Formats: sequence, structure tokens, C-alpha cells
Amino acid sequence: MKTHLDCVPCIVRQSLDSARLVTDDEEIHKQLLREVLEATARMDFEQSPPVMAQTIHRRLRELSGREDPYREAKDRFNRLALELCPKYRPRIEQADAPLEIAVRLAIAGNVIDLGVKSGLEEQEVLDAIESCLTDPLSGDVGSLAKAIAEAGSILYLTDNAGEIVFDRLLIEQLPLDRVVVAVKGGPIINDATYVDAEAAGLTELVRVIDNGSDAPGTILEDCSPTFQRLFAEADLVISKGQGNFETLSGSPRPIFFLLRVKCPVVARDTGCPTGRMLLTSPEHPVLASGTQ
Amino acid sequence: MKTHLDCVPCIVRQSLDSARLVTDDEEIHKQLLREVLEATARMDFEQSPPVMAQTIHRRLRELSGREDPYREAKDRFNRLALELCPKYRPRIEQADAPLEIAVRLAIAGNVIDLGVKSGLEEQEVLDAIESCLTDPLSGDVGSLAKAIAEAGSILYLTDNAGEIVFDRLLIEQLPLDRVVVAVKGGPIINDATYVDAEAAGLTELVRVIDNGSDAPGTILEDCSPTFQRLFAEADLVISKGQGNFETLSGSPRPIFFLLRVKCPVVARDTGCPTGRMLLTSPEHPVLASGTQ
Repeated sequence: MKTHLDCVPCIVRQSLDSARLVTDDEEIHKQLLREVLEATARMDFEQSPPVMAQTIHRRLRELSGREDPYREAKDRFNRLALELCPKYRPRIEQADAPLEIAVRLAIAGNVIDLGVKSGLEEQEVLDAIESCLTDPLSGDVGSLAKAIAEAGSILYLTDNAGEIVFDRLLIEQLPLDRVVVAVKGGPIINDATYVDAEAAGLTELVRVIDNGSDAPGTILEDCSPTFQRLFAEADLVISKGQGNFETLSGSPRPIFFLLRVKCPVVARDTGCPTGRMLLTSPEHPVLASGTQ
Repeated sequence: MKTHLDCVPCIVRQSLDSARLVTDDEEIHKQLLREVLEATARMDFEQSPPVMAQTIHRRLRELSGREDPYREAKDRFNRLALELCPKYRPRIEQADAPLEIAVRLAIAGNVIDLGVKSGLEEQEVLDAIESCLTDPLSGDVGSLAKAIAEAGSILYLTDNAGEIVFDRLLIEQLPLDRVVVAVKGGPIINDATYVDAEAAGLTELVRVIDNGSDAPGTILEDCSPTFQRLFAEADLVISKGQGNFETLSGSPRPIFFLLRVKCPVVARDTGCPTGRMLLTSPEHPVLASGTQ
């Protein structure tokens, strides 16, 4: 997905928000903001938004002198998710359509982030997850089930820490000997890295690799040769989150994207309203009217 | 008021919105956006936000080749306000506290803008104005009444077209022979200029001058010597809208600011929540708790 002009003010605002999360030093906030403005003035709008985000967050880590400024937050997200997750595994096991429930919970995992950041009570996070089990899901779970059954190899691209614990619920529904799970190669915002896969217990369950990149998405040319080969050869790619969608939506590979639509630009791109849970692939696109 | 770091993403977003309102040419949207990013990267944050807005809108007029791109919108705002206004004059005449009703209506005039832009029905605009008559108003109308009674000369700074028709309701409550009304010296967004004062019938009622500037606020050093002298000598200045507040809030002159708080930065600066109607002056500040 290209960077839409509407992404630019959002990139500027998110940069400022991130700078404030990472440091209280107002001079760094100002310095990063000026550098982001300069960089976005010159940016190539043909590139996806995570390309700029990668540059910005590298610079923020330099300016703040913190190699992994979200590490503590990521640990909190994982802990909360590990506490909540056991409540939901029985829901999948007892469901008539376990894959759909697992897909919904994998997308729901995203709300942990919100819950922890804004200081919501555990009950409110539980309520938000509960909504994900009944809210409209645009996309055809049946075509995903078919693709899983037919795939000799599956590559699962994770998104955030915390959320990765809920991803495990979906990964448990896959043929484990044919699955590779990929995490980010270096710290980038609250995206999951190898230690988060360990925390989620995934490394004991399936093969886990890092993609060699510190972009908040999957910028193929920035990824390791190992990851690139796995991506090119996988019979099925399951991609979590909006960052992976933004970077891979133009790919010719057989990808199913699982995400919650988080902004008006992606809403327009997918034909689904902001907030909608979405399961889509180039071969099985969601209709513009937002089929469920 | 200085430019807060939070103003920057907002300036970028508003620039893009304005470019789209003024022209359908996407190359101009992109060009303006890049120039705004470059300019804000270098901007002096000690200056008020309207300083940057003035530069941006001058450039947008150049790029689009339109000298007064909001002229048609301003005419619509005036027409709608002229239709609605007669419904409200009796409310002032019959009120126990006519000045307070006139102050509320002058602030309410701001919603015309919103109503016309988003295609609200007339009834919805009427409902919004009706709310302004009962919503909390932070500030002391009594101290404004006292200042009016004691002032030998009053300078009234207008804000937008449309709104200026509602300003007339308040101006009618002032001693007309001691009032000068100021409008902007050149087209800037939908701010009122001399023709809007004529449309509102103000030029038949009081002395009207233009301030010689095309800033969306009152940047004194950019104003004409005539305006500067009137501003320096007026016993009382009544200032409408957030743009005038942002540019004049640090002034030592006896100013009463009438505005609706439209953003979190001004909310923090005034101690009032976003959306609140506010009457404040350096001598009679609103308490941080938001007194009514």
C-alpha cells in the first residue's frame, strides 16, 4: 500500500506520541518532530507507511539512547495476555467453528495494547475481547480453512507483543509441523520479537524465526535471506495486523491478512469501515460492501 | 500563545484539508503538503499558530491561482446567518440578562461554519445554536458589562463570515458611537473581510475598519498603523474566536476574549474543556476549574 497524503499528518502525530512515550525530554520531542517533518517533506509516497515509521523509530532510539524503549510495555502486554488467554482456549475447543473463534481471538489480541496503555481495567479488556467474538468479521473463514488444509507449508507473520499470546490460540489450530512463525528481527515499537515468541510459549510449539528487519510491517527487501526464501516458498502466508497489510497488500503471494481496520486510509483501501475485523486475501477479497 | 508541539500535526492536517477544499488538483495537495512540512520543520515555536497558517494560506492561494478561494463559502455562511438571525433578536430583547444572551449568540455564530460545511440541515444548525443558549459558559458576563459601561472606546475584533452576522446581535448591545469593528484586511480562510461586514449590515451601524492583515488572527506587527493605534488606545477590546485568542492572549491590553474552545492545546491553556464557551480576560480570568 502506498503512503496516502492522509497518512502524513498521522505519521507526524504518531511520531510525537512515540517520542513522549519513550522519553520525558522535551528537547528530544522537538528534535524528533523537526526531523520527521524534514523527512516526510522529502518522502517517496510510493512506499508504504511502515518504511517511514522504521526510519523514525530508529532515530528515536538513537536520540533517546534506548535500544528497546517499549521492552517494559511489551512485557506487560505479554503478562496480561498470558493471564487472559486460558479463559478463552475452552471457547475454541467447545466451538462448532473453532477456526473462526481462533481467528477472532487472534484479531482480538490487538486490544491488549489499547487496554494496557490507557489503563483500562481487566474487566474492560475482557469486555472488548468478548465483543470481538460477536462483532462483524468481514471475510470468508471457509476459504482460509481450505487453504490451511491444502498448504504443505504455512508462514505466520506476527504483529505485536501481547497479541502474540492470542496468536498462539490460532496457531494451535494449524498443522504444527508445517508452520513457521516469524517475528521482527529487532525492536520496533511494541512489535513482537523472539523473546515475545518465547514468552508466548511458541518456540516450544513450532519453528520460530526472526525476519531480520526492524520495520513495523514486512518490508521484504529489508528482511533476511532466510525469511525471504520462506516467504517466497510458503504455500500459505497468514499475516497479522495493519503494518503487515500495509507492506504486503500488493504481494502476489497467497496471503490471508487478519487485521482490525484502524484508520480511514486502510478502510478505503479494503472497503471496510474503521474498527471492522477483517480476513482478506488477494484471491478471496472482501467485497466493497463489507460482506461478513 | 506559542505554538505547542501538538499544534504541528494539526497544522499539517488542516493544510491538507484546506488544499482539498480549495482545489481538486492532487498535485497541488501534494506540493502544498511538502512545503508545509518543510516550513514547519524550520518554524519558530515561540510564534503563535496563526503565523504559520498565514504563510500556508498565502502559498495555497498562489498555488491554486485563487485570490479568495473561500468567497463562495463565506457568502453561503452569511446568507444562512442572515436567515437565522431574526429568530434570535427577540430572545435578546425579552431576556432578563440581554448581554449574556447576546454573548452566547455571538459565540454560537461559529457553528454556522460547521453546519454549512458538513451539510447539516437548518434544523440541526438551529439545535446547535439553541444548545449554545443553555450550555455552560465559563466567564463573568458582569465584568464585561462593567467594562463596556466604563469604556470610552471599544474595539470589536471579528472572526468568521456568517458568525459576523451573529456578532451584530452583540454589537447592537454596545454603545454604538463608541464602537469600532475590525475585520481582516485580506482573504484568509473563511475569516470575515469588509464585504462580510457590509453583508451583515454592520457598516450602516458602526465604524468598520480592516486590520490590514491576512492572518487568521491578529498579528499586531502585521496590521496597519490605523489598526495598531486603535488597538493601543481602545479602553476595551472584545476579541472573537480562537485565532484572535491565540495571537493576542499574551497582550497587556484590556481584552475580553469570546470563543469556543476548539482544541486540546487551548483547553490546557485556558483550563477549560474542549467545546466550552468561554468569556475570559487577563483581568478576569476563568478559574482553572472552569467556573460558569
